[in-house]
Amino acid sequence: MLEKEFTVNGFKAAAVAAGLKKNGGLDLALIFSEKEATAAGVFTTNKVKAAPVILSREFLQKGKARAIIANAGNANACTGIAGLENARKTAHIAARAMGVQADEVLTASTGVIGEPLRVDLIANALPGLVDKLSDKGFDEAANAIMTTDSFPKIRLFEGIAGGRPYRILGFAKGAGMIMPNMATMLCFILSDIVIDPEELKDALLASVDTTFNRITVDGDTSTNDMVLVLANGMAGNKSLSQAEYSDFNIGLKSVMGDLARMIVSDGEGATKVIDVEIRGAHSPSDALSAARTVANSSLVKTAFYGQDPNWGRIIAALGRAGIVMEEEKVDIWVDDVLIVEGGLGKGIGPEKDAAGKMSQKEFRLMINLNKGRYEDRMVTCDLTHEYVTINANYRT
Amino acid sequence: MLEKEFTVNGFKAAAVAAGLKKNGGLDLALIFSEKEATAAGVFTTNKVKAAPVILSREFLQKGKARAIIANAGNANACTGIAGLENARKTAHIAARAMGVQADEVLTASTGVIGEPLRVDLIANALPGLVDKLSDKGFDEAANAIMTTDSFPKIRLFEGIAGGRPYRILGFAKGAGMIMPNMATMLCFILSDIVIDPEELKDALLASVDTTFNRITVDGDTSTNDMVLVLANGMAGNKSLSQAEYSDFNIGLKSVMGDLARMIVSDGEGATKVIDVEIRGAHSPSDALSAARTVANSSLVKTAFYGQDPNWGRIIAALGRAGIVMEEEKVDIWVDDVLIVEGGLGKGIGPEKDAAGKMSQKEFRLMINLNKGRYEDRMVTCDLTHEYVTINANYRT
Repeated sequence: MLEKEFTVNGFKAAAVAAGLKKNGGLDLALIFSEKEATAAGVFTTNKVKAAPVILSREFLQKGKARAIIANAGNANACTGIAGLENARKTAHIAARAMGVQADEVLTASTGVIGEPLRVDLIANALPGLVDKLSDKGFDEAANAIMTTDSFPKIRLFEGIAGGRPYRILGFAKGAGMIMPNMATMLCFILSDIVIDPEELKDALLASVDTTFNRITVDGDTSTNDMVLVLANGMAGNKSLSQAEYSDFNIGLKSVMGDLARMIVSDGEGATKVIDVEIRGAHSPSDALSAARTVANSSLVKTAFYGQDPNWGRIIAALGRAGIVMEEEKVDIWVDDVLIVEGGLGKGIGPEKDAAGKMSQKEFRLMINLNKGRYEDRMVTCDLTHEYVTINANYRT
Repeated sequence: MLEKEFTVNGFKAAAVAAGLKKNGGLDLALIFSEKEATAAGVFTTNKVKAAPVILSREFLQKGKARAIIANAGNANACTGIAGLENARKTAHIAARAMGVQADEVLTASTGVIGEPLRVDLIANALPGLVDKLSDKGFDEAANAIMTTDSFPKIRLFEGIAGGRPYRILGFAKGAGMIMPNMATMLCFILSDIVIDPEELKDALLASVDTTFNRITVDGDTSTNDMVLVLANGMAGNKSLSQAEYSDFNIGLKSVMGDLARMIVSDGEGATKVIDVEIRGAHSPSDALSAARTVANSSLVKTAFYGQDPNWGRIIAALGRAGIVMEEEKVDIWVDDVLIVEGGLGKGIGPEKDAAGKMSQKEFRLMINLNKGRYEDRMVTCDLTHEYVTINANYRT
C-alpha cells in the first residue's frame, strides 16, 4: 500500500535556492492557497520580535490569508525599520508574482539574527518559485525552511466533517533557540476544512499550549517563532458540530504534537528525547515550573546524555524551582523503574536498571511530588558535545 | 621578596585522604581556632538542603564556633534522617578528637548527592588529621575540598584596626552546580580581628551579595552551598571605628570577590571569564534579571566559547528576560568595541575587532539598555565541550 502523499486540497507549495543559505541549499519556500483561507497565528513572546513576526501579526488581524513566504538563512530580526521594510517588500513582490494582495501574504524568516535580508535575491527567485508551485511541493518546502535541523518535519491528519473528508497538513522547523513560549521557530498548518475564524483561533491556541509550549531544547526563546494555520474551506463541509470540532481539535493537536516532538528529537546535538512528567504538584503552576526547571537544567541534561540516573541533580533542580515541595516526599521513576522513594535513593540495582532504560532513544522521567493533585509535562532532549560544537561555530 | 604565607593568627588547618574520594586524593579538611571565634554563615537557598547545611545553620544560631570539618567526595545531601545523624556524628567525633564541644564544630560536605556518608572513614582519619593541624595547613585544606576544581582557591587580605594588624584568609571550592544564590559550594573565611557578631554577619551578607551571588557557571544551585566566616579576635584590636569597619568590609569583599572570580575561571570546562555588565536599566531588579539571563543563556555561552560576537543571541536573551526594554535602544560593547548601537549591528569591522577581544581569557560584555539609571553585573564563563564531558561522566 502506498503511503499517503503530503497534499491538501487547494494548497500548493514550492521551494528554491535563492542564495540566502551559504551552502546553496533550498532556502525559500512558498505556500499558496487557491482560495482565500481563514487564518490564525501565534507568535513569539520574546519582546524582541523579528520583522516578519511583526508584519504577519499585523496582516492576520483580519483573519484571512492566501499565501506564506518563508526563508531560511536570515532571520530578519534586530534589523530595525529597514528590516520591517524588507519584510513588506517581500510580501509585496510575492503578492504581485502570484496575483494576490500584499496583505494576504504572510512572511516568515529563520536563520542568523542581525543581518540585512537580501530582498533582491528573493525578488530574483520569485518568478521561478511561483512557476514551480505544485500540490506535491510540501516536502521541498519543509526542506527549505530548515537551518540546523537534520531532517524535515511534516505530518498529515485526515478527518471527516459533515460527511466530507478533510485534511490537516503541518510542517515545522526547530533545532536551536527552542523553549516555550513559543517553541518552534516556524510551523505551518494547512487544512481544507470549512471552519469559523474564532473556532480556528481557539483550536490553535489550545493545541499550542499542550504541544509547542511544552517542549524545550535549550531554554532560549527565539525572536522569530510562529505557528500559522490556514484553512481554505475546500473540503466543502457544513459548519462543524460539537463532535466534529472536537475531532478537528484532536487532529490539530496530534499534528502539532508530533511536529513538536520531532523538533525535540532533532534538537541541536540531541541524541535522546525525554518526557519529563510531574505528578502530585500543589498547583498547576508548580507542576509546570517543576517540569520546566528539570527539563532545562544543564546538569540534568548532561546526565541524560551520559545515561546516568543522577537523581541528586533532579532533586536539586526541584529544590530551586520555587515550588511547594518536601524532599522526603519525592518519588522518581525512569520509565517503570523506581529510583527514588521518599527522597531517598533505591540503590545500585534500580540505578543500573534505570541506566539501561536511559540508553534508549526515548524514555520517561516521572516525578511525583506527593504534595497535591496537579500534573504537567515537558518534552526535552539531552545536552551533548554536538550542541556545543553547533553553537560555538554557527556563524563561522 | 617572599610571598606572604597563607596564615592567620590562632587558626590551624590540615587535610588527609580519608578514602571518600575514589581517586584516593585529599578529601577531609579540618580548621581549628585556638580561641572561640565569632562566627556567621550564609547557606544555599535551594529548598533541598544537605545535612551539613542544616546542622551548621543550627549550630551557628549562637554566633560562635571553634572548628570546621569539611569533606569532599560525598555531599551528604538527599540522605534523609540518617544523613543528618551522620553529620552530627561527624561533628561529635571531630569535637572529641580536638577536645571541644560538638556544637562548636561546623560541618560542610561536597561531592556526589544521595550516597550515605562513610562516617567510619572519617572517624578512622580523625586522629591523624588532628595531629597534623598546623598554622600552615591552609593550602592543603584548600586542596582537600576540591571536587571537579582544577586548582585550589585561596586569598589573603591584611588590614589594621586600632593600630593592630589583622588578616582575612579565605578559601573556596566551586566548579559545577554554580549559580546564585549562593554561588560557591564551599567558602571558609578566617580572621583574627576582634569584631561584634552583628557586624560580622552584616559584613558577610553585604559581601556575598556582590560577590558569590553575582557569579554563574551553569545556572544550577547546589544543595550544599555555604560561606562560613570565623573571627577569633586574636589580633587584639579594640572595637572597630566606622572607618575600620569599612576597611574590614572592603577586605572581606576583596577576598570573597577574588575567590568568586576564581570559581568562575575554574568553572567546569570553562576557558574564559566574562563580566556581563548591564547599564541603563529601568529598575535594580531589571538590571539583575538582564545580567542573569544573558549570563545563563546556553546559546550566548557557547558563542563566547566560539569567540563569536553573536549579538543576536544576546538581544534575544534580553527579550525573554522579563524586563522593560526597547530593541532600538540597546547598545552593546565587547570590551571597548561597540558592536550594536540602537539595536542594530555595527557591521563586520567592529565584529572582527570584538572577536579579537573575545579570544582573551577574560573580557567584558557591556549592555546599555538606555531605559533608566540602574546597573548590575554577573561574572560568567563559557559553555564548552569539556563541560559536557565532565557532567556526562561525573559519577562513572
